[in-house]
Amino acid sequence: MTLRIPITLTGIAISIASLAQSKPLQDLTMYANPIIGTEKMGHTFPGATVPFGSVQLSPDTDTLSYVDKNKYNKDVYKYCAGYQYDDKTIVGFSHTHFSGTGHSDLGDFLIMPTTGALQLNPGTEDHPEKGFRSVYSHTNEVAEPGYYRVKLDDHHIQAELTATTRTGFHQYTFPKSENAHLILDLMAGIYNYEDKNVWTFVRVENDTLITGYRQTNGWARTRTVYFAMSFSKPFVEYGAKNFSKQQVYRGFWRKFDQTKNFPDLAGEQLRMYFNFTTADQEKIKIKFALSPVSSANAIENMRTEIPHWNFEKTRQQAKEAWNAELNKIVIQSDSKEEKVNFYTSMYHAALMPTTYMDVNGEYKGLDQAIHKAEGFTNYTSFSLWDTYRAFHPYLNLINPKRNADMVQSMLAHYDQSVLKMLPIWSHYANDNWCMSGYHSVSVIADAVIKGNAPLDANKALDACVTTARRRSYEGIGYYIDLGYIPQDKNGVSVSTTLEYAYDDWCIAQLAKKLNKPDLYAEFIKRSENWRNVYDPSIGFMRPRLSDGSFKKEFDVLKTDGQGFIEGNTWNFSLYVPHNPAAMIDLMGGQKRFTTHLDSLFTMNLPDEFFADTEDITRDGIIGNYVHGNEPAHHVAYLYNWTHQPWKTQERIRMILKHQYHNGAAGLGGNDDCGQMSAWYIFSSLGFYPVAPASDQYWLGSPSVKSATLNLENGKTFEVEAINQSDKNVYIKKVLLNGQPLSNRYITHDDIMKGGKITFYMSAKPVK
Amino acid sequence: MTLRIPITLTGIAISIASLAQSKPLQDLTMYANPIIGTEKMGHTFPGATVPFGSVQLSPDTDTLSYVDKNKYNKDVYKYCAGYQYDDKTIVGFSHTHFSGTGHSDLGDFLIMPTTGALQLNPGTEDHPEKGFRSVYSHTNEVAEPGYYRVKLDDHHIQAELTATTRTGFHQYTFPKSENAHLILDLMAGIYNYEDKNVWTFVRVENDTLITGYRQTNGWARTRTVYFAMSFSKPFVEYGAKNFSKQQVYRGFWRKFDQTKNFPDLAGEQLRMYFNFTTADQEKIKIKFALSPVSSANAIENMRTEIPHWNFEKTRQQAKEAWNAELNKIVIQSDSKEEKVNFYTSMYHAALMPTTYMDVNGEYKGLDQAIHKAEGFTNYTSFSLWDTYRAFHPYLNLINPKRNADMVQSMLAHYDQSVLKMLPIWSHYANDNWCMSGYHSVSVIADAVIKGNAPLDANKALDACVTTARRRSYEGIGYYIDLGYIPQDKNGVSVSTTLEYAYDDWCIAQLAKKLNKPDLYAEFIKRSENWRNVYDPSIGFMRPRLSDGSFKKEFDVLKTDGQGFIEGNTWNFSLYVPHNPAAMIDLMGGQKRFTTHLDSLFTMNLPDEFFADTEDITRDGIIGNYVHGNEPAHHVAYLYNWTHQPWKTQERIRMILKHQYHNGAAGLGGNDDCGQMSAWYIFSSLGFYPVAPASDQYWLGSPSVKSATLNLENGKTFEVEAINQSDKNVYIKKVLLNGQPLSNRYITHDDIMKGGKITFYMSAKPVK
Repeated sequence: MTLRIPITLTGIAISIASLAQSKPLQDLTMYANPIIGTEKMGHTFPGATVPFGSVQLSPDTDTLSYVDKNKYNKDVYKYCAGYQYDDKTIVGFSHTHFSGTGHSDLGDFLIMPTTGALQLNPGTEDHPEKGFRSVYSHTNEVAEPGYYRVKLDDHHIQAELTATTRTGFHQYTFPKSENAHLILDLMAGIYNYEDKNVWTFVRVENDTLITGYRQTNGWARTRTVYFAMSFSKPFVEYGAKNFSKQQVYRGFWRKFDQTKNFPDLAGEQLRMYFNFTTADQEKIKIKFALSPVSSANAIENMRTEIPHWNFEKTRQQAKEAWNAELNKIVIQSDSKEEKVNFYTSMYHAALMPTTYMDVNGEYKGLDQAIHKAEGFTNYTSFSLWDTYRAFHPYLNLINPKRNADMVQSMLAHYDQSVLKMLPIWSHYANDNWCMSGYHSVSVIADAVIKGNAPLDANKALDACVTTARRRSYEGIGYYIDLGYIPQDKNGVSVSTTLEYAYDDWCIAQLAKKLNKPDLYAEFIKRSENWRNVYDPSIGFMRPRLSDGSFKKEFDVLKTDGQGFIEGNTWNFSLYVPHNPAAMIDLMGGQKRFTTHLDSLFTMNLPDEFFADTEDITRDGIIGNYVHGNEPAHHVAYLYNWTHQPWKTQERIRMILKHQYHNGAAGLGGNDDCGQMSAWYIFSSLGFYPVAPASDQYWLGSPSVKSATLNLENGKTFEVEAINQSDKNVYIKKVLLNGQPLSNRYITHDDIMKGGKITFYMSAKPVK
Repeated sequence: MTLRIPITLTGIAISIASLAQSKPLQDLTMYANPIIGTEKMGHTFPGATVPFGSVQLSPDTDTLSYVDKNKYNKDVYKYCAGYQYDDKTIVGFSHTHFSGTGHSDLGDFLIMPTTGALQLNPGTEDHPEKGFRSVYSHTNEVAEPGYYRVKLDDHHIQAELTATTRTGFHQYTFPKSENAHLILDLMAGIYNYEDKNVWTFVRVENDTLITGYRQTNGWARTRTVYFAMSFSKPFVEYGAKNFSKQQVYRGFWRKFDQTKNFPDLAGEQLRMYFNFTTADQEKIKIKFALSPVSSANAIENMRTEIPHWNFEKTRQQAKEAWNAELNKIVIQSDSKEEKVNFYTSMYHAALMPTTYMDVNGEYKGLDQAIHKAEGFTNYTSFSLWDTYRAFHPYLNLINPKRNADMVQSMLAHYDQSVLKMLPIWSHYANDNWCMSGYHSVSVIADAVIKGNAPLDANKALDACVTTARRRSYEGIGYYIDLGYIPQDKNGVSVSTTLEYAYDDWCIAQLAKKLNKPDLYAEFIKRSENWRNVYDPSIGFMRPRLSDGSFKKEFDVLKTDGQGFIEGNTWNFSLYVPHNPAAMIDLMGGQKRFTTHLDSLFTMNLPDEFFADTEDITRDGIIGNYVHGNEPAHHVAYLYNWTHQPWKTQERIRMILKHQYHNGAAGLGGNDDCGQMSAWYIFSSLGFYPVAPASDQYWLGSPSVKSATLNLENGKTFEVEAINQSDKNVYIKKVLLNGQPLSNRYITHDDIMKGGKITFYMSAKPVK
């Protein structure tokens, strides 16, 4: 039995079972560096949060939200996480961020402390002095799991941030000033260039407590976030500026001067300020709690999670929460860089999905109604096209309770869906239906098949089947009728056909396990549909038209307009994760296949084609293999289905070495909500889930010297790589619990029942 | 004890006590004509509702909301209630309306049945065939309390409407058609020319049930109305058109065709249609329930209030509810016109405030949070500048339980107010702070003093005092410091000073009753402030400046810019309802005063000045006395404080006769949420509450032959006018319970303990 500290009391789930092993927790937070990925394409954020926290309190350097949308349409993409390492100024600290996405939303409730003349516009990067933003320097910046500090040079203020699950904790150390201000910007938002704000509502309850909400129409169509904000010290006065373009019936509201000390505000575009006088080095603190449901719940969240003003105490608790998380895998390595890569990956793989539920269990559902999560923690922000691959399998292994709760959250989403669909890309009581496939079914099947789904599995199967039969959704009708999606009906017809086929295989596995032969038959048949988009005349997956013919004009290097989403056919032709052997057969057998695979890693992709490949830097690519994006994440493992598994070992070590670095620009592509990181964790341990919903982890080549997986069930699984070195990347021999391993994979059970895998490494491939 | 059918079960409050008198209820609905006031300035609506119902389901003839705002800024005023009798076309039937206001909001969820080619724009009055609107004729129109019927000529459809408290019931009789449609217009709204829509959200739950909400920023700044809509017959198909100008990230939503059979809609500007095939004379019915809280509550409201599809049954229940209301005063009169005026007045005086609470007791508070009304029915839409005068005193007399609940609702508003203010002009969890004074205090004091406030009176006094001390609200700070509001600080300084002075007298009366001598002293002193704006040199109230001097340029006939709101100084100089005797003294004694009053009624107000006087037709004015608006409603009774009370009698009969007619244009000014009607009811019974919060009703001249007031306490009070006729307007003698009346007034107690007042009428004044 695994006893758990109730999440509603601490906001942090720590397994008592793992504590009970009485191994002291190491401080592994020293190896996790939130700065990694904040430069260029990683799209991670450097700020403070706890594992899977609702609040991710982080500096924003982007002010594109404030400017002409036409001017900045392209640049805005850089700011998915609000912060770019190269920027010289900080605009403020907001409370919600995605980690590693390729699109965004959020950035709610930006706070900025200032001194001097009150300024209610953000200024520009070139002229920060014309607004409330400030120049800062990385030499004065510290980012640790659960803690962020920076000096705001223009205002001579030290800013410190920490957090609990639902509450951000700010600590600002001011100089002596008669003119100290805290700005609350309710207009600001990430990716805001199209002006998402729908409505904001604010009440100044008393001289230390502010409540309200912000409602947006952005990536989430109908999103409302409630807040409660508490100051450690009463303000002297306050005010607001309403930047709304239009405000009807304003006349009647002139009964009051609404710009100053007026506690009852609403509008589309509001900024507020709170004035203080400060002594030298005086700290003013803010607790800022969020709720999906109400201001009252936000207040309850705040009072439950941080019933004091001791910033250091909360910072320490956040650090402990992170150590509890990071100690779930303890690795040995001679390389500090590898340790930093590993624990930063574990850090990044514990940021999303986020808790979306108040301490009292209430949350907003997809139906915009208030629900209560009974017996599970509700999560949101499911970037499933990315995370079904390695991230959710990783959680199934190392964080099974959380993963089971995420599955519950997906099923609750389904229950609330008037479309009766599982989430595609969901966040904050909405689905933005971004990317392709219906990969919730993979996550659900993976959890059920691995025995980690304390729920009504038949109901879960129903949800999967109903979703997969939703004919009106992106080509599913054609897919059912024709066995493929015609390119003349859908621009990403091939990749979507391939992804549906894999998803259908997952449903078939679930049906099999639940003894539903009719459903098994239906979906195992659908899972063969990948064959229908293979063109043997060219040896690649290729778009077909409604009349059954293959599309004539076709470029195997290009992505745009070729029938694929974020990847060309060189990569996507390898996307049959559920049946690589059959795929290899169809592609002409092992020899032809290995040639294809070799070429993928060694050919040159001209720049003109790279430009199509979204979400990655030039470094995120090896030959024509795109590691910086997801479609080919399983590809390097496919040599395992040939006579050349040593090529998997070699490629994996090469990717581990070249695609992950310690610097701010250390990620070659969007971290994608933990998927890039989960790939790293699995691969550096020596195995990878090529097809989630199977119980197999296929061998690669471990890069760690050793590792201990502290499982939630109280058992441990050890990884040892004997004769490990940068050159000894080849596996000579593998023992599982001292016995030679007969397969090129291990199973989930092998790990969960505890034990040890021993790799004997060598500098020479075993051919 | 008064037993009551729980309002949550029936939506209709009927006093068992009055039923228990076993007097059979007369059908008085035949005398109440909802058409009266729908032409020109009455601003009433002809549609279906029950007493004080949340739903007022009524035809809208206005489509100004659809067109260029600059073009129609002036005309929109006509459409406060959505309908103008002169219009030739009906656009549809919406579910919420104010009755008799001079500004508006609402008009939520417009439904229109059509046949033929689907049209999703409303068309124009000149070219109705270009849109979904229809020509109609008054010959095919029936409006009764709780029922409305009209033939929609363009579509050959008969429309019928009835309602319960929270649910509108539509019945449309179609011709045979393969092309029958029901349009649900979520963009439409009354007074919408500035585009109030903030957000709408719709779910097509199944083929007969739709849910969602509409959120607006209008006269109520932050207003959300939830709905549930149920069809008696499944639609064949449905669709939506999104007219929003801007919709971000629309790309991802293209995963579905959202225009047809897509059940999950949201946006700023949506119109939906539902298609049917109909047999000849087939009836399609709609139940449409509202909630201030949630769609789930709307469904519960619907299922509780109308658990069937029997339109006639609901129509009959609505009629019974109206008869229960109208039978509270049973009059005898030889004049059918008078009966119609009287019962139409009773009808209009039972439309607002409206129930703002679900059957489960939940409602949205001023803090935008969900509250539960414990032990009272929550009401909204308090047009207090109008209704404190005669309407709330009327309810205190004839509907005391409802009035007490309204007081509770005001105090709940105060509790939820971060400004700590009682409502000024509040509706739908907002205050629009329209008009002047803080007249909630009058309503509260009137209820407490008349013994009709089962609440913590000390808490109520606190709320009154705190409101009256809110220095930041419209000149209160100056008023407290200087004893008047300077005209250089506030454009309606004189009328506001006068109104505050009366309100302060109400607070003083309350303090006195509750034995708070300090508060009494403070507010009785403030109640004398009317003296500070009287200029003895001209004999009129007149604006003063900050330096204490009177404003030099001043026109006694003009309103605009003269320091008064909706009335000139000829009318407003008489506004000291709490102390007419002192006012008369200050104005130079009785002789000078009666000359002033005589002139008011007999002088000629040139058109140029009438233009200033809002809210009334030219007919709403008698000399310079403006009956069509409120400030002078007590004025005709002021002769009672002179030696010429017979002039009150004469004037009252003249006003009753000339200001209220049976036609569509029968009201000379906005009904103002029942105030114009309450004036009529009191005055035709022969007495009027000149100063609410006193217990006195001053005598006028009854126009009825006799009347029985069936009081909620089970007692009856009879009015008899012996020798009554159109010419016999003067009172020769008055007996109360057979004894000569020694005063020119009767008290609340005189009525509530039951009894009889007998007027002996004469054609000659008793001088």
